[in-house]
Amino acid sequence: MPKVLITTVPFADKNHLPIDLLVNAEVEYLINPLNKKLTEDDLVEMISDFDIVIAGTEPITKKVMDAATNLKMISRVGIGLDSVDLLEAEKRGIVVSYTPDAPAPAVAELTMGLMLTLLRSVQLSNMEMHNGKWHRFFGRRLSEITIGIIGIGRIGTGVLQHLQGFGSPKILVNDINPNSNLNQQFNIEWVDKKTIYRQADIISIHTPLTAQTKNMIRKEQLLSMKEDAAIINTARGGIINESDLYEVMKSGYLSGAAIDVFDFEPYAGKLREIQRCILTAHMGSMSIDCRTQMEVAATEEVVRFLTDQPLEGVVPEEEYVIQRGG
Amino acid sequence: MPKVLITTVPFADKNHLPIDLLVNAEVEYLINPLNKKLTEDDLVEMISDFDIVIAGTEPITKKVMDAATNLKMISRVGIGLDSVDLLEAEKRGIVVSYTPDAPAPAVAELTMGLMLTLLRSVQLSNMEMHNGKWHRFFGRRLSEITIGIIGIGRIGTGVLQHLQGFGSPKILVNDINPNSNLNQQFNIEWVDKKTIYRQADIISIHTPLTAQTKNMIRKEQLLSMKEDAAIINTARGGIINESDLYEVMKSGYLSGAAIDVFDFEPYAGKLREIQRCILTAHMGSMSIDCRTQMEVAATEEVVRFLTDQPLEGVVPEEEYVIQRGG
Repeated sequence: MPKVLITTVPFADKNHLPIDLLVNAEVEYLINPLNKKLTEDDLVEMISDFDIVIAGTEPITKKVMDAATNLKMISRVGIGLDSVDLLEAEKRGIVVSYTPDAPAPAVAELTMGLMLTLLRSVQLSNMEMHNGKWHRFFGRRLSEITIGIIGIGRIGTGVLQHLQGFGSPKILVNDINPNSNLNQQFNIEWVDKKTIYRQADIISIHTPLTAQTKNMIRKEQLLSMKEDAAIINTARGGIINESDLYEVMKSGYLSGAAIDVFDFEPYAGKLREIQRCILTAHMGSMSIDCRTQMEVAATEEVVRFLTDQPLEGVVPEEEYVIQRGG
Repeated sequence: MPKVLITTVPFADKNHLPIDLLVNAEVEYLINPLNKKLTEDDLVEMISDFDIVIAGTEPITKKVMDAATNLKMISRVGIGLDSVDLLEAEKRGIVVSYTPDAPAPAVAELTMGLMLTLLRSVQLSNMEMHNGKWHRFFGRRLSEITIGIIGIGRIGTGVLQHLQGFGSPKILVNDINPNSNLNQQFNIEWVDKKTIYRQADIISIHTPLTAQTKNMIRKEQLLSMKEDAAIINTARGGIINESDLYEVMKSGYLSGAAIDVFDFEPYAGKLREIQRCILTAHMGSMSIDCRTQMEVAATEEVVRFLTDQPLEGVVPEEEYVIQRGG
C-alpha cells in the first residue's frame, strides 16, 4: 500500500474530499503531525518511509531527498516551486506536480483588500479605536494614485481585473516577459522596475521567488520609493529583504506595508514592532474555495500517478530552467 | 463683515483653497477651536455671533438655532442631513446647502476595503501577528458569497461598480425607491430587507439616517442573519443599534463587523471589546480628493450666498419631506 505524507497544513479542514480520494485510492496517509510548517530537519526525520509527499512550502531539499529513499512524487498544493529543489528531484526521477491556477483568485482578492486598507489606514484606525483613540486619518483613492505591479502572471493579472471596477487608476507594470496583449484589455504602462519604485504610490509584488527575485527589493530600492509609498508582498518571503524593510520603516520611511509571506514561517520577527506594517499569516490562498481546489487538484494528481493515468499538473521545463539559473 | 463658523474638523488641512476662498470673499472666519466634533451645548455657546456655519455632522438643532440669532445659512460639508433640523431652519428662513456627490467615491472605496478585510480576517491576523501568534485564517472570495446592499444611492451604486471587477458575485439589493434601470448595468436582484438579512453573507448599509432607518437593524434583524455573516456600516451611527450589535457579537454571533460611524462621536463604547469588529473613525469621506472637493464645494456655496449668486447645492424639498415624516 503506497504511503503518502501530507506536509501542508491545514489539509481537508473545510472539505473532506481530498481524504476521500486518498481512501478510495487505498493509500496509507499521514497528515503532518506537528501541525506547523515543517523545517528541513523535521522533514528529514519524518519522510523516509513515504512514496509521495503532498507538500506545502516546506523545504524539500537535497538533504531531505537523501533521506527520502522511497520518494517517487512531490505534489505541490500551490504554485511556488522555490521550496522544492527541482534539479535534485530530476536526478532522482522524482516527479513534481503543482496546482498553478487554483490559488491565484484568492491571492489577487487579498491583495486588493490590503491595498485599500493601506490607502485608508484602516489597520491603524482600528487599532487606535480599540484603544480608545479617535483620529480621522486622511487617505487616498485608487484613481488618484499611481499603482505599480511587479509580476504580471496569473495573480498580477487578477489584480488588474479587480482594479477595473475602480475608475482609471494609473497602473505601471513590470514583468520579465512583458505581454503586450494585455494592453488591449487593461489600461497599463510597461516600465522598468526602477520607474515603478520611483513613481508608484503603492507597489504590489507578484513574482515567484527565484535567484533573480531573491532580495530584489533591498534598502536601496525601498529608499528610491516615494517617502509615503506603501508596498505589498503576497508573493514569497525573501523577495523584499525583511531586515531592510524593518530598518527603512523604523526610520519613518514609507507610509505602510502589508506582508503576508516571510523568510521563515511562522513569522516572529521585528516587523511586528511596526504598527503601520500589516502582517498576515501566509493567507493569500486561504479562501475556502481556492484552498479546497488546490488540495483536491494536488490529491487527484497523486491518484493519477498511482493509477498510471496521464498527469495534468506536471511542472513544466521552464521551471527547471529557472532553477538552473537560466 | 460676515462671520463664518467652520465647525467641521479637519478643515483645509491638506488643501488651503477653502481658506483662500473665504479670505477673498472678505469674511471673518473661525475654525472650530475645540478641534473635535461639537456637541449641541458647544454649538449653543459658540454660535451666537455667526451668520453662516460650514458644518460637519454636529447637531444643529432647534436649541442651537435659538441661540444663533444671526444665522442665515448652513453649508454642510457632506451629504447626510440627519444632523440638521431642516424644519426649524425653514421656519427661520435659514438656507441649507450640502455637497451630496463629493463624498460618495471615497465611502464606496472604503466599503470595498472593509468588505475584503472582513472576508479574509485581515484585522484579526494582523493583530495576532503583531502579538506573535501565527494562525492561517480561512476566508471567502466575493464571487463565492451572497452580498447584500441596503441603500442603492450614490454610494451603494459606487460599491456595485467596484464589485464589477470581481467576477460575478450574487448581489441582493434593497432601496425604498428601487431603480430597475440599474439592472441593465449590474447583475443584481431587488429583494426586501428581510431576504437580505436571511441570505447575505456580508451586508453593507448605504442609507441616510432618517426616522425610518433609525434602529433599522436591531437584535431581531441581527439574529435573523446567518451566524457567520458580517455587516458593514459606513453610513450613519444609529442605523444599526450599537448596543444590540455589541450584545449579539459578544455572544459569538456574526463572523465580523466593520463600523465607521457611531451614535456619539468620538466613539468610546463597548464595541471596542470585540476584536472581530473593525472600528474606524468616521473616515468614509476622508480621502484627500473627496474631502477637498467637499470643503471647496461647501465654501464656494457660501461665497455664492454672500455675493447673491444662484446656489448650486440647495437641499431639495424631498429632504424636508423626509424630516416631516412623509
